[in-house]
Amino acid sequence: MKGIFITIEGGDGSGKSTQIDLLMSYFDEHGFKVLLTREPGGTPISEKIRAVILDSNNMEMDNMTEVLLYAAARAQHVAEFIKPSIEQGKVVICDRFVDSSVVYQGYARGVGIDAVENINSYATLGLIPDLTILLDLPPDLGLFRKKNQQALDRLELESDAFHLKVNEGYRLLAKRHQNRILTVDATKSIEDIHQIILEAIKALLPK
Amino acid sequence: MKGIFITIEGGDGSGKSTQIDLLMSYFDEHGFKVLLTREPGGTPISEKIRAVILDSNNMEMDNMTEVLLYAAARAQHVAEFIKPSIEQGKVVICDRFVDSSVVYQGYARGVGIDAVENINSYATLGLIPDLTILLDLPPDLGLFRKKNQQALDRLELESDAFHLKVNEGYRLLAKRHQNRILTVDATKSIEDIHQIILEAIKALLPK
Repeated sequence: MKGIFITIEGGDGSGKSTQIDLLMSYFDEHGFKVLLTREPGGTPISEKIRAVILDSNNMEMDNMTEVLLYAAARAQHVAEFIKPSIEQGKVVICDRFVDSSVVYQGYARGVGIDAVENINSYATLGLIPDLTILLDLPPDLGLFRKKNQQALDRLELESDAFHLKVNEGYRLLAKRHQNRILTVDATKSIEDIHQIILEAIKALLPK
Repeated sequence: MKGIFITIEGGDGSGKSTQIDLLMSYFDEHGFKVLLTREPGGTPISEKIRAVILDSNNMEMDNMTEVLLYAAARAQHVAEFIKPSIEQGKVVICDRFVDSSVVYQGYARGVGIDAVENINSYATLGLIPDLTILLDLPPDLGLFRKKNQQALDRLELESDAFHLKVNEGYRLLAKRHQNRILTVDATKSIEDIHQIILEAIKALLPK
């Protein structure tokens, strides 16, 4: 049996971690071997690349350099960890994947959606998630701020305009990849969101 | 006045360093501001990326990861150093550039010529050398070995087959980019080679 590859996307405060926990428990309880991983990172080489990205925060890193570094970390992550795990029949859940690069660097920072998708099609060697769950928060800054009270210090580094742009980018991408991306209204209750996700998951499972 | 961008390619023992020295002297003596740079490297961020590539020599680095890391280092090199220097009217000579990635990773290691060229077209933001000098050694292993006596220990790490493949890759690329790549027979004398290069350079200079 071939495994399943699920990615989860969504901005800060969208409830991503909560839904990942619930989903992991579901797979565990139903006897699946499930692995959680996150980007950038996931392998020793990817972590080294991640360190260059973070370490260079205050230096003049070009946007395209950053796109290529994220893609390099992803290539290693896919080749060394994600692909072999799927081939062993495991369920792999990845917290952020190509779509994050496309939305943050490609759309919000203006490198270009097509450019970032093309570069990443090489990085992933054509691996596409069976399902991408997008936890969509409406572009309502009031709600955004309320959900992120504890994280406001860090978020102040990013402008409101950037947050709106990320939101817009995710919605564009959801239209572009309708077959793969399940958009879920993140203002619903935790349990309602979990049920919507489970329905989509069940359609992927062997009958 | 817009500057000039020249790249030099060629395998070990092709006499690249000697020709670069002669060319630098020519530009110096004729009043040009000339800068020499080399890949991978050229900026602090590129050097950090280079360290990840080298540091990971003994680890399981995926070929595509390596391609993307070289491209990332190059993107920074182009954006921070090469492009601004050319825009300031300088002559920039770069020891190895995109063609090295295409030949070594794309052709000799089998990642694919088109894949590596596409990825690098993003990294360079479309910057193409005004002239690429390819110092071509015939695929004659005897000559190759003779020219490399001092370096044999290191070269033994790479197989003869790999050396032949690199040679073949450079010749393919020279056909593919005839307008840009000047192939020079590296078995000629140092002075003959220098004169052939100067002729091509003079065609680029303002009259």
